[in-house]
Amino acid sequence: MDRQAFGALLTSRLPPEIVVLDPDVIAAHSGDRSEFLAPGRPWALLRPRDTSEVAAAVRVCADHGVPIVPRGAGSGVAGGAVAGDGCVVLSVMAMDRIHEIDTANLLAVVGPGVLNADLCDAVAAHGLWYPPDPASRAICSIGGNVATNAGGLCCVKYGVTREYVLGLEVVLADARVCSVGRRTVKGVAGYDLTALFVGSEGTLGIVTEVTLRLRPAPPPAVTMTAFFDSLADAGRAISAISTSTTPSLLEVMDATTLAAVEAWTRMDLDTSAAALVLAQSDSGAGAVDQLAAMAAAARRAGASYVAETADPDEGAQLLTARRLAYPALERLGAAVMNDIAVPLGGVTAAIGAVEEIARRHDVRVGTFGHAGDGNLHPTVVFDRHDPDSVARAEAAYHDMAAAALALGGTITGEHGIGLLKRDHLEHEAGAAAIDLQAAIKGALDPDGILNPGKVLNRRG
Amino acid sequence: MDRQAFGALLTSRLPPEIVVLDPDVIAAHSGDRSEFLAPGRPWALLRPRDTSEVAAAVRVCADHGVPIVPRGAGSGVAGGAVAGDGCVVLSVMAMDRIHEIDTANLLAVVGPGVLNADLCDAVAAHGLWYPPDPASRAICSIGGNVATNAGGLCCVKYGVTREYVLGLEVVLADARVCSVGRRTVKGVAGYDLTALFVGSEGTLGIVTEVTLRLRPAPPPAVTMTAFFDSLADAGRAISAISTSTTPSLLEVMDATTLAAVEAWTRMDLDTSAAALVLAQSDSGAGAVDQLAAMAAAARRAGASYVAETADPDEGAQLLTARRLAYPALERLGAAVMNDIAVPLGGVTAAIGAVEEIARRHDVRVGTFGHAGDGNLHPTVVFDRHDPDSVARAEAAYHDMAAAALALGGTITGEHGIGLLKRDHLEHEAGAAAIDLQAAIKGALDPDGILNPGKVLNRRG
Repeated sequence: MDRQAFGALLTSRLPPEIVVLDPDVIAAHSGDRSEFLAPGRPWALLRPRDTSEVAAAVRVCADHGVPIVPRGAGSGVAGGAVAGDGCVVLSVMAMDRIHEIDTANLLAVVGPGVLNADLCDAVAAHGLWYPPDPASRAICSIGGNVATNAGGLCCVKYGVTREYVLGLEVVLADARVCSVGRRTVKGVAGYDLTALFVGSEGTLGIVTEVTLRLRPAPPPAVTMTAFFDSLADAGRAISAISTSTTPSLLEVMDATTLAAVEAWTRMDLDTSAAALVLAQSDSGAGAVDQLAAMAAAARRAGASYVAETADPDEGAQLLTARRLAYPALERLGAAVMNDIAVPLGGVTAAIGAVEEIARRHDVRVGTFGHAGDGNLHPTVVFDRHDPDSVARAEAAYHDMAAAALALGGTITGEHGIGLLKRDHLEHEAGAAAIDLQAAIKGALDPDGILNPGKVLNRRG
Repeated sequence: MDRQAFGALLTSRLPPEIVVLDPDVIAAHSGDRSEFLAPGRPWALLRPRDTSEVAAAVRVCADHGVPIVPRGAGSGVAGGAVAGDGCVVLSVMAMDRIHEIDTANLLAVVGPGVLNADLCDAVAAHGLWYPPDPASRAICSIGGNVATNAGGLCCVKYGVTREYVLGLEVVLADARVCSVGRRTVKGVAGYDLTALFVGSEGTLGIVTEVTLRLRPAPPPAVTMTAFFDSLADAGRAISAISTSTTPSLLEVMDATTLAAVEAWTRMDLDTSAAALVLAQSDSGAGAVDQLAAMAAAARRAGASYVAETADPDEGAQLLTARRLAYPALERLGAAVMNDIAVPLGGVTAAIGAVEEIARRHDVRVGTFGHAGDGNLHPTVVFDRHDPDSVARAEAAYHDMAAAALALGGTITGEHGIGLLKRDHLEHEAGAAAIDLQAAIKGALDPDGILNPGKVLNRRG
């Protein structure tokens, strides 16, 4: 089977309007927002509109042993959606309907192509809330959020995507359609297949429908900004806050990130500071008290300037500044965002280790992230047209994984393994756990047609 | 190989002091708190004291194809620890050490034999909190909590066991020791093996060490009691509260349960009521306001009597009354506790369906549970010495599973499948999901020696 013959087969076996054979369009859907990876030349792009079309597509590919690379909005940064040669790219973005918003049972049923922000807006109209809020929420899909078990800013209090996925409809490697999970908040009937698919990056099945838990909209949040002259002081504040209370948000930005955001937004952020810590409380009538306690902790830790505001617009503006951290750094050059996490008390040490790596490889790194979860996004800014700059950026990027492990942490907190971190996984997980993972991959996808080579180097 | 020969082999290959061959002691460790099941005659009871002894035990059993039934404290109610003929019972209760309480990183590392309440007490001494709080917490083990993904009263706000298990050490079916998970709050490095082992009821591996997330101790809770003359009114109050706010506790007890608790405790509970709804808020300075809003919702729904208290002792006393629901019903006869869950808005319908089942089978049922999670424990009181009473209780028990499914719910919210609900699992999960579960069991335990016959009827 070659490109042309398989293209003709797809067109004959599937509705022709979902089969794209134009090489330029295919190329535009063969990568994601990762760096250092060169997509290959897939044979086709499929845009199924419903579960039966996904199943039909998987059947054709499975029959002929053609690998499938599923993709959502393509906003991933670990290469999970980077497609190689001779495969089929399957985009779920045409499955973009919100099927159900159940206000009595606090749940929504959606297609995987729905954008995170669109879901949030739709449920907000009913006074409800879908918490997981990746900074990229305006452009990332629920399907991609499920594939990576995406986190976000509110996870410090409200948990990650996994905690909100009640059930999934999945097309398996043999084209069977399988429903897992439930519509109840709790449930322990059999193995937790839902949690297994969440974060599996399209390697165990293709998610075609997602049942999500919603929450009542929280009370408005009050916001603290605290600037620090030293990272050590900021780290002490983060530790003091994390170990004494549960904020609804606890973020950090370093000096490089602050400068990049300020250069873009002109918000009058103090760019002489070593770090900005942002915290919120949404505890209703208790929020102001909780915030005051956090502000006191920041002052005790040596903050140079602390401000508190109950004004929702001001709070929203500060959060926007935080959400702009990555695009602001991207304005300085090519940017590759890492995603390490360390145990809660290790945030300062992790930022320090990243700075040491930046010095060693002579690269510019802006670090920001979810301090309250120990999850940081050190972002290397480099020149894509200078091979030496690329090489130094790549070396720095990979050294950060080792640094996270040395601090008792993980190589990825919320973005996934994809292709970029595959070689680090065994260092983190160990041989026995990799064997288990490969055994599960082998049991669910024995012919290895689903996103092959992602997450694991091998299959069981 | 027979009982005697295998007993001799165990004694020669393992430290003799961990091998128990006394039939009476073995029999005392062959069941749990389930009903309707007759344990068989296991060949031996093993009481390993550390991971290497568990691995050695699994190696001997695997070499000779002898099944292993792992057990914690034996407080399960679904038969997950009921042992059959010719197997080895492996108790993890000698692995009862708290290895580490890490106050900087908010985590604890414990043996599976640590009792839930003992862990809570130990971390409370550091101002920390381990949230999952099964009503049986004084007598249930962390290992059993992990095996069933146990819930509890605070889960409505703080989540179930799965959300607190960061990592596990597990002895696999081939006696290899495998670590899964991490020490960070977030992490997505590879498939979520931790979530796969949580709730797997000892069928995929034997947990020998558990790394648990802790939280800062929450502010003291304030408590509401609301009595209702009709279940429908109570259901309206529960729905109104659940869809507008997140209480830290939202429990319900029906008239039968109320009467049983009052008969024991003499707390002056209104036994003429159809239902009592208990709610708490722990939102610090905002708690009184949040509670007042919940009380107003209860009054609007038609509560006959509503009381609010900020007195911690009074609140604790009311929670004790709730925790005594099951033992109070046990004082009336043999009691079999069910564990169904329905979507949030279905609590009243579920209680109604249970009442209809009680009428149909002419049995006495007390229903109580975690209303804010839609998770109910209808408990059938019967006479163990009257075969007709037993048969009616068993029929009623099983009909509840069907009723939960008919309401879009699940056959088990937090207790597990064990042996008792195995035949209902396929009705809930469907054939394709059962195939997946069997494939995973087959991949991890190809010879089927770990707790065989539990959860699944077959293996892949």
